[in-house]
Amino acid sequence: MSENPPDHLMREDTGPVDIIDVESVVASVRPEVRPTTFLASETLNAVLGTKVRIASETFQHTGSFKYRAGLAVALHSRAEHLLTASSGNYGAALALAARHAGKKCTVVMPASSARVKIEAVRRNGATVDLVETHTMSRKQRVEQLRAELHDVQVVSAYDDPFVIAGNSTLGDEIFEQEKPDVVVVPVGGGGLSSGIVTARGRARAATKVVGAEPLLANDAARSLRAGVLCHDERESTTMCDGARTPALGQRNFAILRRGLEGIVEVSEENVANAVRLLFSAINLKVEPTGALAVAAVLQDPQRFQGKRVTCIVSGGNVDAELYAKLLRG
Amino acid sequence: MSENPPDHLMREDTGPVDIIDVESVVASVRPEVRPTTFLASETLNAVLGTKVRIASETFQHTGSFKYRAGLAVALHSRAEHLLTASSGNYGAALALAARHAGKKCTVVMPASSARVKIEAVRRNGATVDLVETHTMSRKQRVEQLRAELHDVQVVSAYDDPFVIAGNSTLGDEIFEQEKPDVVVVPVGGGGLSSGIVTARGRARAATKVVGAEPLLANDAARSLRAGVLCHDERESTTMCDGARTPALGQRNFAILRRGLEGIVEVSEENVANAVRLLFSAINLKVEPTGALAVAAVLQDPQRFQGKRVTCIVSGGNVDAELYAKLLRG
Repeated sequence: MSENPPDHLMREDTGPVDIIDVESVVASVRPEVRPTTFLASETLNAVLGTKVRIASETFQHTGSFKYRAGLAVALHSRAEHLLTASSGNYGAALALAARHAGKKCTVVMPASSARVKIEAVRRNGATVDLVETHTMSRKQRVEQLRAELHDVQVVSAYDDPFVIAGNSTLGDEIFEQEKPDVVVVPVGGGGLSSGIVTARGRARAATKVVGAEPLLANDAARSLRAGVLCHDERESTTMCDGARTPALGQRNFAILRRGLEGIVEVSEENVANAVRLLFSAINLKVEPTGALAVAAVLQDPQRFQGKRVTCIVSGGNVDAELYAKLLRG
Repeated sequence: MSENPPDHLMREDTGPVDIIDVESVVASVRPEVRPTTFLASETLNAVLGTKVRIASETFQHTGSFKYRAGLAVALHSRAEHLLTASSGNYGAALALAARHAGKKCTVVMPASSARVKIEAVRRNGATVDLVETHTMSRKQRVEQLRAELHDVQVVSAYDDPFVIAGNSTLGDEIFEQEKPDVVVVPVGGGGLSSGIVTARGRARAATKVVGAEPLLANDAARSLRAGVLCHDERESTTMCDGARTPALGQRNFAILRRGLEGIVEVSEENVANAVRLLFSAINLKVEPTGALAVAAVLQDPQRFQGKRVTCIVSGGNVDAELYAKLLRG
């Protein structure tokens, strides 16, 4: 299979050669995460015009799939201190995972971040380092801290073989239960989608993996079309804050260019429609990024008609104010 | 055990002597319902000051525990046509259950019911009979239809031994996984709470069962205190529409007066707080009635401190408009 994971993770075009024992990473992560929540509904099927199963990570530790990635990193890093930049789910997930693994963790966040997100990272035991982003970029601050801190490792939220292996455990759960015709997965930096492709390889499933990306942040779709890594010129204004990443990671692109069937570019309107649909049809609270896969089915229904489709809902963390606004339409 | 179900269900003070084979009802219902969704969260524990497990029925067929009851009735009724009055979850549940069992179903609803609720009952295959409640009560209309329809059975949403047995399957799931110190359960007509007491008897668990009732519709709490069945004088204005029932059923009262540890009377403010807490701490969308058990822990924290508490979230069906309003506080 072209997406066989160890092969991929060792390809030279993915940057430094990564030699990691994927099976042992997966085996260490799996017992520590909450199983994903599979949901189905006749109402949802009727609206979407096809047979859909939801794999929801909204009840995962820290409310998103990112805990799978954070745990893979925290359990296997040799450093005693983990450092990342995140204003969203990865910060909270890495913080909790580091605590679980007995490591220190520092998360660089914009000073403008929502209080609840800063508090979530602190509550999970990490140090929050606030940066005034108009005076210094988060990346610059991470470099400063890397030089200052002892025995520290800087961790990407997606472009990291442990992250990809950790996220692949969600794919294992999906393929163990049932091998659907299609899995639809949100695409930001490509950490989750490349994990699903990796798991598909292990499961030797004929399932197609389709990405779901906001049209307003369609760097991944453009990258697949062009065959080279494309970047968004500026940070996207999409409400899907988990998919504002300006470009896929190198490792992720290497896996996705061969492993993805395609990417559906989703309008903001369909993201909002999907948030409302999941609320009304299956009582599921999701964040906008988490609604991308269902939004992709609304965006391009023909593509999925007559198929058994699994839509991954990647997370549920959304401010009450924004959620109330989306519900009111 | 005082709450041994066959004994209870055959007591003369519970109305006509009911001889039903509880075990076979339970065995027929269990494989057809979705397992309840158990959730836990450190954040939730921190706020509630005790160790809480949520048993959520929001992902059950038709979005509430009522499908368990509807199915028990539909699978075991000898009539070919089931008739009930409901403006809420029981109508949708009985409709779907009747379709599953190959029976006809008619649901009497106020003409003023929300369109989405009427549509939900119709979508599940039942006939909706709309009644102008200022000219005729729902009960009168049910009596009219009982006389008109062929081979019809009028079904209560709570005061029915099959309903109680069906709902007891949720209790079985709770006690099989872990026997908590306390189970907290919303109380309306007493259909769910008496099912949980029944299941506790089967499990021979030392677990205490505590009811959670809106202070604005506290007929059950008054009934337990008085030792006789008390009625609310008029339909309550509580936002917990599933607990507006004016009185416990006869059978339910007979079970609850001996089987319940007590009832916490919950303020509307704490219901709203619980809805918001479940949204923010565990990404769970619940209807106000579904939030009652968690609201009871907020209302009387001392009662639950240091205990292993299971809170039942009975359902998730709430209008987007009301939910958005609750989120904004």
